[in-house]
Amino acid sequence: MVQSSYRKVKEEVFHLKRLTLKPKCLDVMAGGLVVVLNAVYAQQNDIYTGYRVILRRNRRELTAMVDLSNDLVKAGEIGLFEEVSKALGGPAHGAVELELTSRPQSIEYIKAKLDGHTLSTPQIRTIIDDTMGNRLSEGELASFMTACYIRGMNEDEVVGLTQSIVATGETLKIGKSPILDKHCIGGVAGNRTSMVLVPIVAAAGCYIPKTSSRAITSAAGTADVMETLCQVSLPIRDMEKQVRSIGGCIVWGGAINLAAADDKLIKVRNPLSLDPKGVLLSSILAKKKSVGAQYCVIDIPVGRGVKLNDMTEARSMARDFISLGKRLGITIESLITNGEDPIGNGIGPSLECRDVLAVLEGSGPHDLRDKSCQLAGTLLELSGKAKKGAGYAIAASMLDNGKALAKFKQIVEWQGGDARKLNSHSVPIGSCHHRIIATRSGRVSHLDNKLLSRIARACGAPLDRGAGVYLHMEKGDMVKAGAPLMDLYAESEGKLEVALKVFNTYEAVEMEKVVLDSLRE
Amino acid sequence: MVQSSYRKVKEEVFHLKRLTLKPKCLDVMAGGLVVVLNAVYAQQNDIYTGYRVILRRNRRELTAMVDLSNDLVKAGEIGLFEEVSKALGGPAHGAVELELTSRPQSIEYIKAKLDGHTLSTPQIRTIIDDTMGNRLSEGELASFMTACYIRGMNEDEVVGLTQSIVATGETLKIGKSPILDKHCIGGVAGNRTSMVLVPIVAAAGCYIPKTSSRAITSAAGTADVMETLCQVSLPIRDMEKQVRSIGGCIVWGGAINLAAADDKLIKVRNPLSLDPKGVLLSSILAKKKSVGAQYCVIDIPVGRGVKLNDMTEARSMARDFISLGKRLGITIESLITNGEDPIGNGIGPSLECRDVLAVLEGSGPHDLRDKSCQLAGTLLELSGKAKKGAGYAIAASMLDNGKALAKFKQIVEWQGGDARKLNSHSVPIGSCHHRIIATRSGRVSHLDNKLLSRIARACGAPLDRGAGVYLHMEKGDMVKAGAPLMDLYAESEGKLEVALKVFNTYEAVEMEKVVLDSLRE
Repeated sequence: MVQSSYRKVKEEVFHLKRLTLKPKCLDVMAGGLVVVLNAVYAQQNDIYTGYRVILRRNRRELTAMVDLSNDLVKAGEIGLFEEVSKALGGPAHGAVELELTSRPQSIEYIKAKLDGHTLSTPQIRTIIDDTMGNRLSEGELASFMTACYIRGMNEDEVVGLTQSIVATGETLKIGKSPILDKHCIGGVAGNRTSMVLVPIVAAAGCYIPKTSSRAITSAAGTADVMETLCQVSLPIRDMEKQVRSIGGCIVWGGAINLAAADDKLIKVRNPLSLDPKGVLLSSILAKKKSVGAQYCVIDIPVGRGVKLNDMTEARSMARDFISLGKRLGITIESLITNGEDPIGNGIGPSLECRDVLAVLEGSGPHDLRDKSCQLAGTLLELSGKAKKGAGYAIAASMLDNGKALAKFKQIVEWQGGDARKLNSHSVPIGSCHHRIIATRSGRVSHLDNKLLSRIARACGAPLDRGAGVYLHMEKGDMVKAGAPLMDLYAESEGKLEVALKVFNTYEAVEMEKVVLDSLRE
Repeated sequence: MVQSSYRKVKEEVFHLKRLTLKPKCLDVMAGGLVVVLNAVYAQQNDIYTGYRVILRRNRRELTAMVDLSNDLVKAGEIGLFEEVSKALGGPAHGAVELELTSRPQSIEYIKAKLDGHTLSTPQIRTIIDDTMGNRLSEGELASFMTACYIRGMNEDEVVGLTQSIVATGETLKIGKSPILDKHCIGGVAGNRTSMVLVPIVAAAGCYIPKTSSRAITSAAGTADVMETLCQVSLPIRDMEKQVRSIGGCIVWGGAINLAAADDKLIKVRNPLSLDPKGVLLSSILAKKKSVGAQYCVIDIPVGRGVKLNDMTEARSMARDFISLGKRLGITIESLITNGEDPIGNGIGPSLECRDVLAVLEGSGPHDLRDKSCQLAGTLLELSGKAKKGAGYAIAASMLDNGKALAKFKQIVEWQGGDARKLNSHSVPIGSCHHRIIATRSGRVSHLDNKLLSRIARACGAPLDRGAGVYLHMEKGDMVKAGAPLMDLYAESEGKLEVALKVFNTYEAVEMEKVVLDSLRE
């Protein structure tokens, strides 16, 4: 076995020079803070690709990385991409002063992590600050994520990372108690429990500043579903005021600057789908911490086709959340739930919204009602609003007595929607429709979350709000030949046809020994 | 301790679509194969940042990565940076067909390496092929390098990587024997042994197809020094013919396509100065293997201010080279040398060239002569051209009997130079000159390679061929007040002044208890 590496003498960059350069605007986004210098001119000035420079113009200053070109810019010029040009006050202004700067301190800390050392909270904080200041390249950040993945992170590091991420963004100050929150690890189609849970706990006298995501690869995120009824991009102070006044909100997290570093880290985690456990935990907990949550319930779906399909790992993650919550001052309960098949009947923003409203009206899909009551009940018990064991019943009563529906309508109105005539049938769905029927009888043995999401996306979801899939059966049901399996909704016949092709290509619905076929109605 | 990661369900990308897009040329280099799609249009088509696409136009095809923009391109358009536009046949042509492609196989192998598995040679070969085909992002490659650094590489992996790198480029076929080569780990100013060693061993009847590098952060690379006399960018077949005919060449490795993957890997290794040991060894050995070397000597300088400053690590590296050489069919001897201070008197292309010519003329700096004879002697013994213990004397005789000088002139002539009036005084040096004298007496205790290189660079080296530093003393010398320490040469008084400032800022020459000063002549 070859040893891991030769020790290297620390290379320091000594530089005296400042250069004054003529800007040349390159009307293109570079996707980062990069400037272009003439290759020969740069070499003469001891500047190489990847060097970091401080740029100054008037009183603006930023750090960027150097790229070299033979033709794009001449000696004495500096090529500015849109991001840099904008940050320096636009293309109209004068000369740019450039000064070489040394490698950021973080690089030493990242190398220490590579070498197996544990990082202190101030060291982690420096890495996060340099990340936010664009002082680390994609490769350097990828290297850090890789090191976190291979070396692992101890609890102190995860806590330090969480606190550092929280410190990069704004924090919510509700000034009331108890403040609750909820998070789901994701992957289950139609899993819109937040929209049921938020009005339940708010109606019960709690405060829940819920931020949700939009769909990335699924057919709908909670923010997409809520947006079929009202605004989801609120200024942070409006969100604060709303929660203080009526107990809850359901907004898009992407529109507000909470835990800002997290977005940058997610972008880096993506390429290899690495998700180092410590970073994943920090990412989630930073969002909870930045809204001021005191009590939080985590939904961890387990099963074929979702992120986790192993109970041992799910239990380990559940325990990690609870333990880290204690360190961060959040009382957490983790629920490991069945993530095998979709929740509710609808998949797609408006169809899922109809399910949510039906549950709030006291009827609706039983699995969505049941899961929402379990999560809400847990939160009520954690916060002391319900005695141990009594949470579920209180949550269910809020659905049955209409208080949760009234609270939901209040939330919709506060977020600029019109709740006067709102009910589970009033939400418009796609004008084109196609029913898929079972060609033979049999028992439904599997409904695939990912493939059903794919079909709903082919229908046009999430951008076409009314598009998606409506399921007529669930896992375990006996279905007879000729009975409806699902309805597809879309805004155009063309999209419906594409969705049918997707349906016919993959086996989204598995039945015991039954061959499925699709017939146009 | 939190476990290293949760297992993740493998995410596969299913895609049916092909899109036909209108090209929009972005007259900028992207530094990689990247295309820009309209963000909304991309989402509608299930395409996300970082997805890989195959692009086709006429019969050209390439793989690129997707970036998204809201304003740069419209729906149905594809933004092409210069590299992509060129690869598709230039801006004048028609529509571009885009097809989504799955993640390259390498990603699984990189993740396996992260998880501590040993990679097979075919797996490593796939990673190198995907690297050459631009199918891996900067982040993914950085992640691979980080994994190689943390996990280490066993000998099988290093051999596999070396063979894979060799396979990406051309190989030299001299058709003669013995074929020799030499490599230096680097970091010592003025260390121009190759230019002495090549003519010695060629004059002794061996074949040595020497490729060298240009200066990156030093004041001169061997290619820069040789270029003061003749061409160093030769077509690979001319190089082959020259070595077959006269036994040797001294050319710039960057101009020929040997071990092509190595350049890409070096670019990735740079950001964190990682240099995973296995990759470093592969990188060097691939170059030796691709020229067909049978016998090779490796110069490993050790000391303050060079890459290695620890004898244990130097010995370990020396052994690794020998052991890997056996596996690759190259007989290697490693020499651990003193890298504390510069070799020869000159630092800068022409000044170093004068040293080399003086040694070839039978005089010159004794340390350059001695080291060159040691390295050349070792090669002669390895190849059987000299008996064990007789190599040094044979090498020295080649310098004293003029055969090495004659061979060197032959090499210069073959590479397009004029060797008729060539001698150690004929090489022109900078017209501006300044002498630095000792202000007090004392013994020279340290001459710093890096700082002296920095002074020579401030003088204008390596681009101004005649610029640089000429040392009047070496480590250990007793210097009297008023005696010359060094001469600075430059093409302009301005550069001379900058170099003097650098000299006055750092302590490049350390003397026992002696304060240095600089006076203008």
